Amino acid sequence: MNQERWITLAHGNGGRFMRELIDGIFARHLANPGLDVRADAVALELDGEALFTTDGFTVQPLEFPGGDIGMLAVHGTVNDLAVAGAIPRYLSLSAIIEEGLETELLERLVASLAAAAREAEVQVVAGDTKVVPRGHGGGLYFITSGVGIRANPIPLGLDRIQAGDSILVSGPVGDHGICVLLAREEFGLQGELNSDCASVLPLTRTLLDLPGLRFMRDPTRGGLATVAHEISQVTGLGVRLWEAVIPVHEPVRSVCDMLGYDPYYLACEGRVVAVVAPEQAAEALTRWQRLPQGHEAAIIGRIDATGPAAVVLETELGGERLLDELEDDPLPRIC
Amino acid sequence: MNQERWITLAHGNGGRFMRELIDGIFARHLANPGLDVRADAVALELDGEALFTTDGFTVQPLEFPGGDIGMLAVHGTVNDLAVAGAIPRYLSLSAIIEEGLETELLERLVASLAAAAREAEVQVVAGDTKVVPRGHGGGLYFITSGVGIRANPIPLGLDRIQAGDSILVSGPVGDHGICVLLAREEFGLQGELNSDCASVLPLTRTLLDLPGLRFMRDPTRGGLATVAHEISQVTGLGVRLWEAVIPVHEPVRSVCDMLGYDPYYLACEGRVVAVVAPEQAAEALTRWQRLPQGHEAAIIGRIDATGPAAVVLETELGGERLLDELEDDPLPRIC
Repeated sequence: MNQERWITLAHGNGGRFMRELIDGIFARHLANPGLDVRADAVALELDGEALFTTDGFTVQPLEFPGGDIGMLAVHGTVNDLAVAGAIPRYLSLSAIIEEGLETELLERLVASLAAAAREAEVQVVAGDTKVVPRGHGGGLYFITSGVGIRANPIPLGLDRIQAGDSILVSGPVGDHGICVLLAREEFGLQGELNSDCASVLPLTRTLLDLPGLRFMRDPTRGGLATVAHEISQVTGLGVRLWEAVIPVHEPVRSVCDMLGYDPYYLACEGRVVAVVAPEQAAEALTRWQRLPQGHEAAIIGRIDATGPAAVVLETELGGERLLDELEDDPLPRIC
Repeated sequence: MNQERWITLAHGNGGRFMRELIDGIFARHLANPGLDVRADAVALELDGEALFTTDGFTVQPLEFPGGDIGMLAVHGTVNDLAVAGAIPRYLSLSAIIEEGLETELLERLVASLAAAAREAEVQVVAGDTKVVPRGHGGGLYFITSGVGIRANPIPLGLDRIQAGDSILVSGPVGDHGICVLLAREEFGLQGELNSDCASVLPLTRTLLDLPGLRFMRDPTRGGLATVAHEISQVTGLGVRLWEAVIPVHEPVRSVCDMLGYDPYYLACEGRVVAVVAPEQAAEALTRWQRLPQGHEAAIIGRIDATGPAAVVLETELGGERLLDELEDDPLPRIC
């Protein structure tokens, strides 16, 4: 196809350029039996209870070590369904493109999105594109909504968490946040770190039949500490985290030390935090550690009814530190 | 609630400010049994075949006579489901907010969105907010995805259109486009026009049991001419439109004459184009004209197998004019 080199406003107007953009890039890469780019709405085949979610992606830069906004837009929404106990099935994709974006870059990102969708076995069945004038967008935003089928035989939710439950994390925290930070080159630092951006579906699926599984969440914006705060606020219980055993990759720790960040507030895009009844925590850990995505998983804390409804980090030196609720944004446009 | 006056990056970080923004504005206005702002994904109750769609809204200005981006974000997606023959049920809402947006304006827009959702009897059950730095967004973008239940007893689609079919429009075209144009004050013109932004569900529902109903579409971006082009391209048939009977409000015609726009390419946000078997066109027209949304409805053209697969406007003076496929964008950020 004869594509223009840069996206223009005419690519968003509903006319010929838009049709060529959709046919030449979006439909070509995302082709699947369910996608009909000429339909206003598409039918879904659903053989169970449907779960629904949405997420917007504004990460900057659009490409970073280990991922890009296209892959992230699939994994982010797939992961929201996965931690809710669903098997993801269908995605919609809305693109808000800033005039002047390089067409080749757009195509690379859509191709990456399509590859991630194939890997996660979800079909992108509905889409929309808008082009906004130069200066009115950050290059490109992707917004995905997802529909999945409930697969958890037991109910999951913050309200099922009980005092004494164990807290697990599926792998090291903060890789995505630090990786995007370094990719921005604002600090002149170079890292060997890749984003953890990935589907967490294998991790969630393997726990679904554990009767002691209470709740799962992917710690994205605001990181592990923010998930811990949500648990504490909703349950009215304390959350105690053990610093010595929370996995953090060494480069993440170094950059955090250098810049004064706390890794527990940094976004992950391929990790799961799970709360599990204490008698099944070891079984959950074993199941995770058997998976390539989970070999660094750890039991990192406990739900606690004896102290205040707060998030307390037990430090490696034997002290305690309150992890406050996040206020300032350490890293905007991280996801 | 003690809200900040302007949105800051901290309102998007996953922490306390974001929680307050979601609880204080989004959840408060959108409250409904299905909305759980603390869940990663929500369950849908679906008693039929699910239809799915998505749409992004980038209109500028955010408020215009007769509507705003909040109302538009509901109607746009509700209407995509409606013209596909569905009864809309659930929406997701993703907001991309530019740092510095006035909180009061955001609240007004979310309240308008909530009111439109109540009116259309859809529940906003899933949401996401992102805040992007100043200069990286056009104030506010809303992206909605919708799930509806199929209600058309007969299949609808471009592929069902046949030579000889009649083309109907439910009301005057171009109001939304001209209204937004005037609201921008770029041209120093003032109009008395309101946007046609509205749910088309009453219009689509009343036709669903007509065996001769072939296809419906809401002529948004690219307007009536673009719908006609899509029909022609997919069917390989000609589309003939009769200028003398296409309803256009007088102020729309005046502004178009003055600025050299063609009203047939301008966006509507509350109209339907329907293709109906000729023997049922009068019945369809009567049904529309009985509704308050359809009293200016008209039969405006015909599917034609004798000429080329093109869109031809038969002019009031008895001539013919080809309506080319849209290329330049007359009005970016119209929806």
